[in-house]
Amino acid sequence: MAVRKAHYPIPEFALIRVLDRRFSRRAPRLVRGIGDDAAVIAASPGMWWCLTTDLLAEGVHFDRTIASLESVGYRAGVANLSDIAAMGAVPRYLLVSLAIPKGLASAQIYRLYDGLMKVCRLHDVSLIGGDTSASKAGLFLSITLIGTTKARRALFRHGARVGDRIYVTGSLGDSLAGLQLLTRGKGAGSARYRGTRLRRAHRDLLVRRHLHPAARLAEGQWLNDARLATAAIDISDGLSGDLRHICEESRVGAELDLDRIPISRACRSYADSRRLDPLQLALTGGEDYELLFTVSSTKQPIIERQARARGFRVTCIGTIRPRRFGLQMRSGDRTIRPIPMRSYEHFR
Amino acid sequence: MAVRKAHYPIPEFALIRVLDRRFSRRAPRLVRGIGDDAAVIAASPGMWWCLTTDLLAEGVHFDRTIASLESVGYRAGVANLSDIAAMGAVPRYLLVSLAIPKGLASAQIYRLYDGLMKVCRLHDVSLIGGDTSASKAGLFLSITLIGTTKARRALFRHGARVGDRIYVTGSLGDSLAGLQLLTRGKGAGSARYRGTRLRRAHRDLLVRRHLHPAARLAEGQWLNDARLATAAIDISDGLSGDLRHICEESRVGAELDLDRIPISRACRSYADSRRLDPLQLALTGGEDYELLFTVSSTKQPIIERQARARGFRVTCIGTIRPRRFGLQMRSGDRTIRPIPMRSYEHFR
Repeated sequence: MAVRKAHYPIPEFALIRVLDRRFSRRAPRLVRGIGDDAAVIAASPGMWWCLTTDLLAEGVHFDRTIASLESVGYRAGVANLSDIAAMGAVPRYLLVSLAIPKGLASAQIYRLYDGLMKVCRLHDVSLIGGDTSASKAGLFLSITLIGTTKARRALFRHGARVGDRIYVTGSLGDSLAGLQLLTRGKGAGSARYRGTRLRRAHRDLLVRRHLHPAARLAEGQWLNDARLATAAIDISDGLSGDLRHICEESRVGAELDLDRIPISRACRSYADSRRLDPLQLALTGGEDYELLFTVSSTKQPIIERQARARGFRVTCIGTIRPRRFGLQMRSGDRTIRPIPMRSYEHFR
Repeated sequence: MAVRKAHYPIPEFALIRVLDRRFSRRAPRLVRGIGDDAAVIAASPGMWWCLTTDLLAEGVHFDRTIASLESVGYRAGVANLSDIAAMGAVPRYLLVSLAIPKGLASAQIYRLYDGLMKVCRLHDVSLIGGDTSASKAGLFLSITLIGTTKARRALFRHGARVGDRIYVTGSLGDSLAGLQLLTRGKGAGSARYRGTRLRRAHRDLLVRRHLHPAARLAEGQWLNDARLATAAIDISDGLSGDLRHICEESRVGAELDLDRIPISRACRSYADSRRLDPLQLALTGGEDYELLFTVSSTKQPIIERQARARGFRVTCIGTIRPRRFGLQMRSGDRTIRPIPMRSYEHFR
């Protein structure tokens, strides 16, 4: 939610800021408006509501020649569920707007809904409304998802403090690797692809991670309920971009330890097979839908113990630094490099 | 909301029913899901939330060569506000998804938001979030609006009973007349247009009613608070189509008195100038955003007295009949004609 996908020449953060400045107002019960993974409203004395909306456009977010409509629906669901996960909330209700191009048979539309509702049912989310329309051009899909948390209990982007540890769930880069495998001829290094020995199981895992990613709802709810995270966001634009959002909203800097970034064996062997840098996949690949969060250093032992007990994979990948520190990456040979400036122009 | 715009070859009511059958579940706190102007959730012991979403697609719902982006935004706001009005609710919060085609300057996007927020501010609605994306084709706009009512107090489509009177606010057909004036060469009877003497003031009123319609929020809240209406809907698809929704959801028939349908002097003189039937404009023209509602016959004197006192224009245009009666229209010469079957195939 919150105007955050970087696919457009109008700098999106400029757009967010103008909208926020021009149109945001202190509305009754509004806890958090534009600028987080979801808006938060104090719906009742005991409950907060989190509302997020995500738009998927054909040719921009998906390509029907690569992904089935079932997977387009599934991924649209995950994109929204992941925003709710990043708030530490429980997803509840779903509204779907769909603009349908000519020539798309009803069976295909049902397939899209099947994919969407498959992942929604997995998390007990109910379809409560929507709108459909013709489209003169491609397929457009806009989803609004509503989740709930206990009152005064949600994860935001703005709570990170200097000294906090930076954590990430799961592994990064798999989704981008899967996308490149699906697009073949289009991906970097593809000319070498045919000759590689990427194992079938690795290939399947990466493709699955792209077409049917997971939303880290259990992890988000755990971090929120146990009051373990000081800030959180989901990784939908890539690690470096999303860490910047936390830094910007929390007014801090950050230091990443590149050697600790969790990269799956499948992703590494894919990168090897194409002579790519796996770190590059992990840092810039969007749509992994893992959670990025910060934890007070005193809680580090607790979080690692609890994660193990619950079977969650979490990895400490850095430390929050003062704002003047900016964003820096440390690698094994101790060289300090500034984090690439992609989509960084509006930070500060 | 609720999958209701008839712009697409897949019969929309078939789509609604399949979605409803396949995916609707009794979710906790869900009062009403798919099938009304808005979904309703019992958010707290004292409050119900109404959620509606509407999608506008370029080339289907608007034409940028006819309407400015300011008016596109304004009308998008009204389409959603009107759904909230039909529930008798107070609109509160807004989320906006926007897919932006190449070549659209930021100034134009701000103009769209200006129009949207102009009508939203008029009704104290706050922008709390959204999403933006590039579009490979036209402009797409999806809005989710959240309103509130007191618990157990909302207007639905399903409460009409045999003997109830059918009422409408304002006047009908103005928006379609305004659209035809704007498209000139494209409208029916347009060849005769240049020679007519349609007064400037009438022309301006009709164009304004198309580009900047009103949402009948005060009227909806009055009908709801005073418990005067048994069922309600907003007229976005045309009187005959929307009356059918009430009949279908309430499992009743209806008899319309064509002579009583409120048509403005401006609309009549426009119809005269083009030798059109003003009734045809009133019956089939969508996007008037007036409210259509039913009232127990015993409350007829109260409603008319209260409407006068508040300066609301309401007109009794018919009576609810048993289901087997179907939908019939009575005109001055007593002929009974069945209501045209446009978009009627799924009724019953």
